[in-house]
Amino acid sequence: MPKTDIARRVYNHTWKLDPICRSLLDTDFYKLLMLQMIWGLYPDVDARFSLINRNKKVRLADEINEDELREQLDHAREIRFSKKEMIWLAGNTFYGRKQIFQPEFLNWLADFRLPEYELSRRDGQFELHFHGRWMETSMWEIPALAIINELRSRAAMRSLGPFALDVLYARAKAKVWSKVERLRKLPDIKISDFGTRRRHSFLWQRWCVEALKEGIGEAFTGTSNVLLAMDTDLEALGTNAHELPMVLAALANSEEELRAAPYRVLEDWQSYYGGNLLIVLPDAFGTESFLRDAPGWVADWTGFRPDSAPPIEGGERIIEFWRRHGKDPRDKMLIFSDGLDVETIEEAYRHFDGKVRMAFGWGTNLTNDFEDCAPREVQGLKAISLVCKVSEANGRPAVKLSDNPEKATGDPAEIKRYIEVFGAENRVRRAVSV
Amino acid sequence: MPKTDIARRVYNHTWKLDPICRSLLDTDFYKLLMLQMIWGLYPDVDARFSLINRNKKVRLADEINEDELREQLDHAREIRFSKKEMIWLAGNTFYGRKQIFQPEFLNWLADFRLPEYELSRRDGQFELHFHGRWMETSMWEIPALAIINELRSRAAMRSLGPFALDVLYARAKAKVWSKVERLRKLPDIKISDFGTRRRHSFLWQRWCVEALKEGIGEAFTGTSNVLLAMDTDLEALGTNAHELPMVLAALANSEEELRAAPYRVLEDWQSYYGGNLLIVLPDAFGTESFLRDAPGWVADWTGFRPDSAPPIEGGERIIEFWRRHGKDPRDKMLIFSDGLDVETIEEAYRHFDGKVRMAFGWGTNLTNDFEDCAPREVQGLKAISLVCKVSEANGRPAVKLSDNPEKATGDPAEIKRYIEVFGAENRVRRAVSV
Repeated sequence: MPKTDIARRVYNHTWKLDPICRSLLDTDFYKLLMLQMIWGLYPDVDARFSLINRNKKVRLADEINEDELREQLDHAREIRFSKKEMIWLAGNTFYGRKQIFQPEFLNWLADFRLPEYELSRRDGQFELHFHGRWMETSMWEIPALAIINELRSRAAMRSLGPFALDVLYARAKAKVWSKVERLRKLPDIKISDFGTRRRHSFLWQRWCVEALKEGIGEAFTGTSNVLLAMDTDLEALGTNAHELPMVLAALANSEEELRAAPYRVLEDWQSYYGGNLLIVLPDAFGTESFLRDAPGWVADWTGFRPDSAPPIEGGERIIEFWRRHGKDPRDKMLIFSDGLDVETIEEAYRHFDGKVRMAFGWGTNLTNDFEDCAPREVQGLKAISLVCKVSEANGRPAVKLSDNPEKATGDPAEIKRYIEVFGAENRVRRAVSV
Repeated sequence: MPKTDIARRVYNHTWKLDPICRSLLDTDFYKLLMLQMIWGLYPDVDARFSLINRNKKVRLADEINEDELREQLDHAREIRFSKKEMIWLAGNTFYGRKQIFQPEFLNWLADFRLPEYELSRRDGQFELHFHGRWMETSMWEIPALAIINELRSRAAMRSLGPFALDVLYARAKAKVWSKVERLRKLPDIKISDFGTRRRHSFLWQRWCVEALKEGIGEAFTGTSNVLLAMDTDLEALGTNAHELPMVLAALANSEEELRAAPYRVLEDWQSYYGGNLLIVLPDAFGTESFLRDAPGWVADWTGFRPDSAPPIEGGERIIEFWRRHGKDPRDKMLIFSDGLDVETIEEAYRHFDGKVRMAFGWGTNLTNDFEDCAPREVQGLKAISLVCKVSEANGRPAVKLSDNPEKATGDPAEIKRYIEVFGAENRVRRAVSV
């Protein structure tokens, strides 16, 4: 071809938008699983989700153009599930189960659109809130995060010339591949991609997923990204998130109900899902109190996902819980997913090998590790700890304590009240990078 | 990006193969409908398919490298239906009907692979045959034709420099678009893409399908290409082909059975499909005799696809048949599909408008019209009349008479015998270009 493809060049320079969110399936699988339960059990609950940037020093509203952000959010609101996508959701096998989604739920989903958003700026940060029914606002979490993270990468790369960009991606690819080479030395390890929300970009996530598929083969068990799972015939993976206990806790009308909320979530979940989907996320209000007060049947669940304690410490505490309830940890599963990278994966793998089944959900450091990749330092390419959390349920404040006070979210007075109810044992402050 | 993407360039220069057949869904929809019926009713019948080049002057084996052809055929034999494709076949609605494919058939299809081929060269032509069970060999028709046609285009374009190629596609695109502009002047016309087998290339067919989708909108009713239908959320279209009456006729043990074969096919078909899939293809052994001997219930079918008589003449004969059986042609459908281009579409549309429902299956002149597009004449870019027909069933010769003796296929002695049985009224010799 001649060096200049005129039509493509004009198109590139005149098109309305290079969309970041291409499909409503470009989200994490657990959102769909949770959504079905919310739709079924809590259709009238309102929930407000809010963007929280834990790296206050990064002034997002200075880095990202507000109009571009609005264009991307507006574009995401126009998307609906396509026919092919609906057929796949109805027909695919998830976690070995057919028809995991009920036909009535899928009928409702076929007309789903993302609800409104409120966007403003304050002190160099975006105030971004989504309000409305929980079963609508919940779906904003992943696209909102993916959009902001990719807009930030794009803005950062505008200062780079063509060779600098080429070198940037060359180094980033080399870096991913070195990680792949280390991981394939660990026999029978199970790793999956959990990096949608924090990814550098959609295309880069796809590259990383394809690299893992080619590089570690069977050890790559799937991706949390439903669109990539569909397009690459991988397993779609994920279970549930903090928003479930956070909303149920916010709705509690007494201290007793509040204390019971984390277990109520599990009962709700169990009425929809089974098998390998029975994974407990214990740290919403502190793992220590969760395990202390847990009814015996919690030990019957397939596994736990410790998400804010360090892997070895958090994992050992759960193994101890299983032993206390007479369970053999080798029949159980631990899913690690908090800020993993090759070092922490290797360490946890070596520590727990033979003691418990393990899986690693690898996120930010898989899909957004560009450290030392640009020819000169570009701050905007460093991943930040950005989350989109439920902040209110039916008008009441929603909070999360976490095992790490740095990861707590919500109104300080309310956090104090929760600590009085659940206690603060074993909560240790640790720096959060991603 | 720097002008040279080294990784891509090296990859382009070292990869094993640029596959022409990318998926087993890259075939015509009618093959899958027929396949289910063959699998259900004739699982033990053997059928041999053979390549026939009606343009003898084009020496295919001189134009196309035999090794390249073998590589492409071998590659096609490695492909299986992917998980996503199987889910789509099971879950999509075809012709308004859900689950048109039975679960047992889909189970069988999930392990399907194309059977062996025999390839040799004679007098500058390829002798290409596929032998085995009918329910396996039938699936070779479309990929075999698409592979040979695309290899021929590729070979022809090797002589063109980058600017000549750019101009070639620019002119071809302009040409398609001029046709689009003419067609959209015809109100409520229904046009679909039937151009898989004769396409210039897969990517070019996709371009044409997308051009029609944007250009004529609702008037574009779908594509016969199942892969493109899935990927672009279009309807997959098609009904049945000559191989059905040809095989049943070859299996006939008496003159009476031979005479009944074309109607037996319709009874078989009716046991699997209904509604808009009840389309009669009347010309396998001459439309005249077909209509003359047809039982009354044939007039109850939804429509006819006249495939070898000129549209107006052929259509009028069928309208006359419906009237004779007391049917109002305005409730009926004619599907035109033989060598159409804008002129013939316009002519037939104007002639039949208001008299009968019509649909146009546009093939070769949609997906392979490069006439006068290359900066200098390139013979290899001119589409040829290449077909892949059933030549034997259970070891007996299979033949087709057609309304145009130029389109007849099979053993001359056997053709003579069939003419004695069916007659030769209204068979008129007309040049076949595509």
